[in-house]
Amino acid sequence: MTCVSCLLLLLLQLILIAAAAAAAGEGTAAGGGGAASPYEPNWSSLDSRPLPAWYDDAKVGVFLVWGVYSVPSYGSEWFWKFWQADKNPKYIDFMERNFRPNFTYQDFASHFTTELFDPASWAELVAASGARYVVLTSKHHEGYTNWPSAFSPNWNSKDVGPKRDLVGDLAKAFRSKAPHVHFGLYHSMFEWFNPLYLQDRHNNYETNLFVETKTVPELYELINQYQPEVVWSDGASVDPDWYWNSTVFLAWLFNSSPVKDTVVVNDRWGEGAMCHHGSFYTCQDRYNPGSLQNHKWENAMTLDKGSWGYRREATLTDYLTIHDLLTTLAQTISCGGNLLVNVGPTHDGRIPTIMEERLRQLGSWLDINGDSVYSSRPWTHQNDSLTPGVWYTSRGDRVYAMVLEWPEDDLVKLGSVVTTKHTSITMLGYGHGNLTFTPLENTGTHVTFPAMSKVASQWVWVLDMLGVIPAGHSTQ
Amino acid sequence: MTCVSCLLLLLLQLILIAAAAAAAGEGTAAGGGGAASPYEPNWSSLDSRPLPAWYDDAKVGVFLVWGVYSVPSYGSEWFWKFWQADKNPKYIDFMERNFRPNFTYQDFASHFTTELFDPASWAELVAASGARYVVLTSKHHEGYTNWPSAFSPNWNSKDVGPKRDLVGDLAKAFRSKAPHVHFGLYHSMFEWFNPLYLQDRHNNYETNLFVETKTVPELYELINQYQPEVVWSDGASVDPDWYWNSTVFLAWLFNSSPVKDTVVVNDRWGEGAMCHHGSFYTCQDRYNPGSLQNHKWENAMTLDKGSWGYRREATLTDYLTIHDLLTTLAQTISCGGNLLVNVGPTHDGRIPTIMEERLRQLGSWLDINGDSVYSSRPWTHQNDSLTPGVWYTSRGDRVYAMVLEWPEDDLVKLGSVVTTKHTSITMLGYGHGNLTFTPLENTGTHVTFPAMSKVASQWVWVLDMLGVIPAGHSTQ
Amino acid sequence: MTCVSCLLLLLLQLILIAAAAAAAGEGTAAGGGGAASPYEPNWSSLDSRPLPAWYDDAKVGVFLVWGVYSVPSYGSEWFWKFWQADKNPKYIDFMERNFRPNFTYQDFASHFTTELFDPASWAELVAASGARYVVLTSKHHEGYTNWPSAFSPNWNSKDVGPKRDLVGDLAKAFRSKAPHVHFGLYHSMFEWFNPLYLQDRHNNYETNLFVETKTVPELYELINQYQPEVVWSDGASVDPDWYWNSTVFLAWLFNSSPVKDTVVVNDRWGEGAMCHHGSFYTCQDRYNPGSLQNHKWENAMTLDKGSWGYRREATLTDYLTIHDLLTTLAQTISCGGNLLVNVGPTHDGRIPTIMEERLRQLGSWLDINGDSVYSSRPWTHQNDSLTPGVWYTSRGDRVYAMVLEWPEDDLVKLGSVVTTKHTSITMLGYGHGNLTFTPLENTGTHVTFPAMSKVASQWVWVLDMLGVIPAGHSTQ
Amino acid sequence: MTCVSCLLLLLLQLILIAAAAAAAGEGTAAGGGGAASPYEPNWSSLDSRPLPAWYDDAKVGVFLVWGVYSVPSYGSEWFWKFWQADKNPKYIDFMERNFRPNFTYQDFASHFTTELFDPASWAELVAASGARYVVLTSKHHEGYTNWPSAFSPNWNSKDVGPKRDLVGDLAKAFRSKAPHVHFGLYHSMFEWFNPLYLQDRHNNYETNLFVETKTVPELYELINQYQPEVVWSDGASVDPDWYWNSTVFLAWLFNSSPVKDTVVVNDRWGEGAMCHHGSFYTCQDRYNPGSLQNHKWENAMTLDKGSWGYRREATLTDYLTIHDLLTTLAQTISCGGNLLVNVGPTHDGRIPTIMEERLRQLGSWLDINGDSVYSSRPWTHQNDSLTPGVWYTSRGDRVYAMVLEWPEDDLVKLGSVVTTKHTSITMLGYGHGNLTFTPLENTGTHVTFPAMSKVASQWVWVLDMLGVIPAGHSTQ
Repeated sequence: MTCVSCLLLLLLQLILIAAAAAAAGEGTAAGGGGAASPYEPNWSSLDSRPLPAWYDDAKVGVFLVWGVYSVPSYGSEWFWKFWQADKNPKYIDFMERNFRPNFTYQDFASHFTTELFDPASWAELVAASGARYVVLTSKHHEGYTNWPSAFSPNWNSKDVGPKRDLVGDLAKAFRSKAPHVHFGLYHSMFEWFNPLYLQDRHNNYETNLFVETKTVPELYELINQYQPEVVWSDGASVDPDWYWNSTVFLAWLFNSSPVKDTVVVNDRWGEGAMCHHGSFYTCQDRYNPGSLQNHKWENAMTLDKGSWGYRREATLTDYLTIHDLLTTLAQTISCGGNLLVNVGPTHDGRIPTIMEERLRQLGSWLDINGDSVYSSRPWTHQNDSLTPGVWYTSRGDRVYAMVLEWPEDDLVKLGSVVTTKHTSITMLGYGHGNLTFTPLENTGTHVTFPAMSKVASQWVWVLDMLGVIPAGHSTQ
Repeated sequence: MTCVSCLLLLLLQLILIAAAAAAAGEGTAAGGGGAASPYEPNWSSLDSRPLPAWYDDAKVGVFLVWGVYSVPSYGSEWFWKFWQADKNPKYIDFMERNFRPNFTYQDFASHFTTELFDPASWAELVAASGARYVVLTSKHHEGYTNWPSAFSPNWNSKDVGPKRDLVGDLAKAFRSKAPHVHFGLYHSMFEWFNPLYLQDRHNNYETNLFVETKTVPELYELINQYQPEVVWSDGASVDPDWYWNSTVFLAWLFNSSPVKDTVVVNDRWGEGAMCHHGSFYTCQDRYNPGSLQNHKWENAMTLDKGSWGYRREATLTDYLTIHDLLTTLAQTISCGGNLLVNVGPTHDGRIPTIMEERLRQLGSWLDINGDSVYSSRPWTHQNDSLTPGVWYTSRGDRVYAMVLEWPEDDLVKLGSVVTTKHTSITMLGYGHGNLTFTPLENTGTHVTFPAMSKVASQWVWVLDMLGVIPAGHSTQ
Repeated sequence: MTCVSCLLLLLLQLILIAAAAAAAGEGTAAGGGGAASPYEPNWSSLDSRPLPAWYDDAKVGVFLVWGVYSVPSYGSEWFWKFWQADKNPKYIDFMERNFRPNFTYQDFASHFTTELFDPASWAELVAASGARYVVLTSKHHEGYTNWPSAFSPNWNSKDVGPKRDLVGDLAKAFRSKAPHVHFGLYHSMFEWFNPLYLQDRHNNYETNLFVETKTVPELYELINQYQPEVVWSDGASVDPDWYWNSTVFLAWLFNSSPVKDTVVVNDRWGEGAMCHHGSFYTCQDRYNPGSLQNHKWENAMTLDKGSWGYRREATLTDYLTIHDLLTTLAQTISCGGNLLVNVGPTHDGRIPTIMEERLRQLGSWLDINGDSVYSSRPWTHQNDSLTPGVWYTSRGDRVYAMVLEWPEDDLVKLGSVVTTKHTSITMLGYGHGNLTFTPLENTGTHVTFPAMSKVASQWVWVLDMLGVIPAGHSTQ
Repeated sequence: MTCVSCLLLLLLQLILIAAAAAAAGEGTAAGGGGAASPYEPNWSSLDSRPLPAWYDDAKVGVFLVWGVYSVPSYGSEWFWKFWQADKNPKYIDFMERNFRPNFTYQDFASHFTTELFDPASWAELVAASGARYVVLTSKHHEGYTNWPSAFSPNWNSKDVGPKRDLVGDLAKAFRSKAPHVHFGLYHSMFEWFNPLYLQDRHNNYETNLFVETKTVPELYELINQYQPEVVWSDGASVDPDWYWNSTVFLAWLFNSSPVKDTVVVNDRWGEGAMCHHGSFYTCQDRYNPGSLQNHKWENAMTLDKGSWGYRREATLTDYLTIHDLLTTLAQTISCGGNLLVNVGPTHDGRIPTIMEERLRQLGSWLDINGDSVYSSRPWTHQNDSLTPGVWYTSRGDRVYAMVLEWPEDDLVKLGSVVTTKHTSITMLGYGHGNLTFTPLENTGTHVTFPAMSKVASQWVWVLDMLGVIPAGHSTQ
């Protein structure tokens, strides 16, 4: 599609970049960086950039989904869409029962009070969960910005509701209280009800006013002001990537932005990009393929099975148990993914206690078993060929078997592990030496678990094996 | 000043015009109109356009100033500015006494409920006041649009507060219920707190993001959607007109817009324009020069002496009496001006009863005395040379003397009127024939008023004179 | 009806009186007063008390009806009743359109904010109206007390809404700023929805828990704390007076209360009392019999023809003009009544400007014509026998004719006034001496009005006559 | 102290009883019950009533503390007191930061919305916790009634806030969904800010208006309308019991009320009653004496260590772990107490998920180990003489040892248990037969725990012993 206005708008983008950079007080142009601008604004060039190492080592992140939807905190963070666009009776009914007829979604913003919000305690909690990065919604599909964006006047957290820069306050708190936790930002490209966006779509993308006056300037502002090391894009998939000018932005991000060396981005940058382009792939929500992938990926999933944003009506059965969570972790890490654990804070600035408990349980497990997770790499086998519920990782010459359920009669049969004369096996968090094991008849290994009462881990036990070889491979 | 980005942005403006036109569902381009595009985007060309006749004939308009400031309705429609930018203690104190600490101006918008708003009754009232045009604030300096602008998402009357198109509903009501009242719109160019505007100013106007992405598209949207016959611009005076691109907009307005033949505009289009360019001059608020002007002008003034927006604390002495109002009317019309009478509706959609009373009093006076106002022209003399408080107008060969105070002993001495043998004098609303008069010794005329108890008008009496000549002129 | 519980409750009442008195910090018992307890708790004794002189001389009062209904300020101060008990569709609809489903009447109380309430300015305004007494609702049928009553916890102006003692603050302001204006209180006996009241009624008054624990203690508290000189009771008429224990209260009020010498009470003390017992009769709302009454009475009427409490939807035609108001005043005073002019303040503590204007217009008229009103007495004739719209009062040997409309040809024919050789006639506010008059053929007098332009009064002109006799009476 | 008014008020009380009974629609007098009125209104008579059997068998209850304080849900359910009476800076500051200056505690009531309240799910949850009774706050010290009391108009859950009968809705839900769970009500005698109460105290109890017009009628209303089987009184301790008329009420409750046969009451009925009178003693909040008591008692304690009402700022460490809770349970039951586990619902009608989890964990433990709790009786020894953290109960000839921590090397030494030749020992929830044990050298028993991986219980393991005798007793 050739589009005259788009060419003109491309020019505009350059201006906007300059303007945003100037606004951010940069002495030199945003382009900066001298000779080195290795990446061009096309996918093949962008995809050639190596993944910054920290991300694959980090393995576990926490995902904070927080916005105006946290005020009704009912049903889903898609509240507005379900209510007003889909006319979903559940939401229609909720509004009719509890609000005056002309109450609008925007009216919720005044009640996004965050009066109990303590950024330092959030940073402390995320650190305690064992996560090595955090991703915060800077703006969800509702368009409300959790920072005082120049491109979203009167519809941002400084102008209405919290009256503070939520993104900035959290960025500062994380950098101060949990410096080993990488700070990242989620950003929605599209906005359900933005009239310029709807106009652009209605015009078959022959205009892109929305992108040029809102999305793009907003992204530059975010990066320049907060230097996020993860840019977790969303809401771009139904529109072409050239509409979003995604590759232009990414080229700037990788070449010249203040985070050019360490930033990672996901794969949600336009129609067709998902699962095909980006530092890591997310493919779909709660992506958990169960097999090794040939590109770095991430499983973004929720503690509340039914929602990303906090919804008040969720009860205990709606939340993952710690066993559920560790199961997902084991599956994800074994197959080469990272796990991004979603938590929905409340309108008044708290992380619900049941979610705090899960995060602290996860942290207590990682304290014991983190060697099998952080900086680990997938092993030859991902899950055991004989016993369900056993997932493998490796680190150098160590192989880890994460056993989800305590085995009957304390004996686990590993079909995928072959012992050698150099083999030794112990359990993480078990301080009493090696476990006994025997080869299985055909192939595999029989490992005897220690007395449960001697074991530190309460859920999911990890065998730490040296000198083993994968079944189906010749001995070393 | 040469500005590369401005050139590029000029291109953008063309696109935006096309986009806005397309959004307004126009089959042909906004430029339309075939060969005739007589006006160029410079003041000398624009100023050459003749004033559409209806405006000078109309004489009296009603000005409705209504917005989010109508919610606090305290102090002034400049509430936000005085409170947050100027830190005026009166406003600081009001907020501290009555609202929670983090209450923002934007939070007021939810309370702009307009639940008692009945557009038809407003149209009826304006018609009853005798006004022949009405001007409604479409957007004041707060930036909140009283229509669902695509360029002001979440900060407009459809998204938060009234949940309706106030501009559209009133336009429709006026056209249906008071078709002889011309519908006009006030529009503020600048917005006190818009970050893009502040950025542009900070950049010494080397950028004009605000104009290109907000002001200009907004103006096109307004004109295309509502076809106002008055465009009453404001808030442009501290910035250069080339920053606002005012002349480009006005050339379109006069050449190609749907109201090109009948629209009138005021003079507030940028630094230096006020009192120098435009269909009519406003020069300053409550402009009332007291002498004949050589260009059509308007006295925009308020019934509440202290505010344009409704302020609850105003008491009776803050309001003009009907005598005050008629005095201003007489002075204004005599000197060639139009009178734009401001009224501030309430947050719930009412016109305060004291203002309704003034408007109906004005209407009752115009019912009797309208011949001296509508379609009148200034006379040779504006006010009497001998007796203070007497103001003249004319219509064809009739001369009208508006006498503000009933004269002592029922005798008024007019120093500026010379009678002839063809002279006859009566009083508007006095049904009992001619009045007696005698020439004054040197020059002028002595007119005997009728018994007050026979006179229809309660305030300000109008002598209707035929066959008189102005003092200092030779007889015809 | 014999009622055991009632006897017991009578005992309780004595205790409550003592308790209330003690609470009010009285050194001596409320009964107090030594030997003099002239009145017994029965109507014949109570009715024998002479009317305190100030009341008949005062003639004009202002009635302030203010409470939680001032928050919706829609329809009527009977909002709650019409909405919830009568299910009146107008009110049902108003609530459905503007409030959440479970919004209760009590929820309005939080919004009774009175932030602009300035008691001193109210006192100034009432004084400026020429009124000589004021009556404030201390509690209307909703049960909400405008003072911090010990018998209405959580439903009074200190606990919810204004957070101040409205009754106390006004009492203090009137005594300080307008000491010649007598301070009075309205008090509703019944409460539409009080469960104890409903229970008592359901029990055919065999219980009177409501009276004993709420109404009676409340009345003692009011009198002891605020010393009102008018006790304007209401809402008692559908229940027997012995249920209300009205005569017991009144005996205390007249014998022993702190206002025993000066207090006046109206006639709304129970079924059958209205128009039969009390210091003055009100008979019905807006009582205006048009003929002389044989007992002191009061016309309690409203500036807003449709409501006592402020209702926002009232427009100009709903308000009395000053001519309407003066007409009612003339009729009322001529027939021996007092005029109690109702005004409904707003939820935020203002007296609407249109009502302020009426009160000040009334005051300006009384400044000129007060001699015909204050301390006047009805004359032999109340209105003229020949010319409609002429009403008489007298003061000593002066007779006043209040002429509602300026007479045609400046001549008024008074059929009820006979002149004598001692007769002189002038007009109040006319400073140029006596008017000419001639006897009518049969009986009566022909008076020539002065030139209207010489007269001070704008509406309703008062002839001040000496040496005249009533038609149908022999000459002196 | 002799008090004339009190005698009279005693008469009133009888009337009020009758009135309340009549209001409750009782055909027969409240006294009912024919000849049998065995209890007199004095403690020695009342204390002679046997404890209804169900209560001692039930052992575990859930305590729901819910009211207007659930709206701020900050600090404590004593919010109002700490804020307004104590001027505690924490509360002062909270209000100053988050509310307008004149916001009152009563204003919170409008926000007690309970929109997500589902009584059936609460009943299901309490049943799932294993509790056999539930106690709901009908009214806390704030005076707000969770039912539409005739004695608390405008300050109850029907008139403001939920707009429903919370007590009635829960009573119905429990009786329908969890009929084995006895329904009880908490009721506060005093009210911090009730002016009548403060007056009575100020009068040295020579008046008791508050009791007679509020507390007592309220109690009758509650019992007659909802038939609670627990009456959990509170807030009576600083005033004498004769002020409260407690014994008169209790005599009626035990003699004639609709729950006379099954109701149990606690010990908070006036100064000196606590720990001395009542069906069961509570002595103090979180009473947990650690030794056998000679009167039935109850440990009322909280899951949130810092508050009874929900407070939003509590984080995970503020909540008891399930281990903490089971520890308290074991201690309490072993010493003859009942455990009343407090939970604070939210203003919108939910039980916070972390509390739901604890209750369900408790229920899952009781499903396995309930035999050691329900209908159990204290054993000779309460806790073990040798090993800390072992608590005993008994049922018939079974003895239960609740072992709080899994013993080192799977061996527990019980100093208080002596085995015999008839002894057999197993573990509740262990399905694989008897455990091995050996006598200890001097006295006691050495029991070998099974493999932890075979055991059902996750926390606190219960040995179920037959044929054992207490140490220090001769063998059978």
